[in-house]
Amino acid sequence: MRYINFEDAPAISPDDFFMGEALKEARYALEEDEIPIGAIVTYNGKIIGRGHNLTERLTDVSAHAEMQALTAAANSMGGKYLQGCTLYVTMEPCVMCAGASYWFQVSRIVFGAYDTKLGFGRLNQKITHPKTVITGGIRENECADLVKNFFKAKRNRL
Amino acid sequence: MRYINFEDAPAISPDDFFMGEALKEARYALEEDEIPIGAIVTYNGKIIGRGHNLTERLTDVSAHAEMQALTAAANSMGGKYLQGCTLYVTMEPCVMCAGASYWFQVSRIVFGAYDTKLGFGRLNQKITHPKTVITGGIRENECADLVKNFFKAKRNRL
Repeated sequence: MRYINFEDAPAISPDDFFMGEALKEARYALEEDEIPIGAIVTYNGKIIGRGHNLTERLTDVSAHAEMQALTAAANSMGGKYLQGCTLYVTMEPCVMCAGASYWFQVSRIVFGAYDTKLGFGRLNQKITHPKTVITGGIRENECADLVKNFFKAKRNRL
Repeated sequence: MRYINFEDAPAISPDDFFMGEALKEARYALEEDEIPIGAIVTYNGKIIGRGHNLTERLTDVSAHAEMQALTAAANSMGGKYLQGCTLYVTMEPCVMCAGASYWFQVSRIVFGAYDTKLGFGRLNQKITHPKTVITGGIRENECADLVKNFFKAKRNRL
């Protein structure tokens, strides 16, 4: 009988770990033939909301991963605001989702791949809550490759 | 027996008429002690989606009138996009809702009261869809007074 020796496990930062959870959500989207973007919300090191892109299944172009995760998190917090919470999302949020994070007063947004075309970072004014701190590029390549390969496969199928 | 003589009716522009329908929605919100903002979506002169602010009832700070009306309209259109549709809303949309209108590809946004603090118009870059045409200030005072009086009454109750 062998036991796992946790001392052998590679060190992984909390941001890398939680982005891994958002990546799991992105892969659920992929399984459903949705653009593979996933999100989770954490509070005090615990996951309190999960979501992935559901735009095709719900025929709702606003059903982004972040919207699902934010409303799920607010539900599980039993309150309106997500102060002290972090939103992890595999792709840089769009203007709608960044605007939603303003209303939820999310304390931190951590995203994986940059979206220079439609991400909120292209704006020259802050649209997130004044107190929201942003970190981009966590597990960037894994997050970006999921979406790139999805569209590559779509094009090859045509 | 008397008949209504329609020739006696005052002329009303389509924008004024449909803003009246958005105002009806705002009053439904007021009855539920929600911030009184209402929205409708029209297509070819017909109302295909309605909604009012439900942030308190749903404990969801993203449950804005526009989000309800846009998703309702997309449902009734049976498609993803709202090309050819007009969103009427009693208050200038926030960044989240304007961002949502981008994804829905709404052709026109008509709003009542200006929101210089949180409205999307404060941004110096266009965040709505390139093809979206904006009209503000329709029945502005009625729309603004509803919200002003709501907050005034709230303050007096404290």
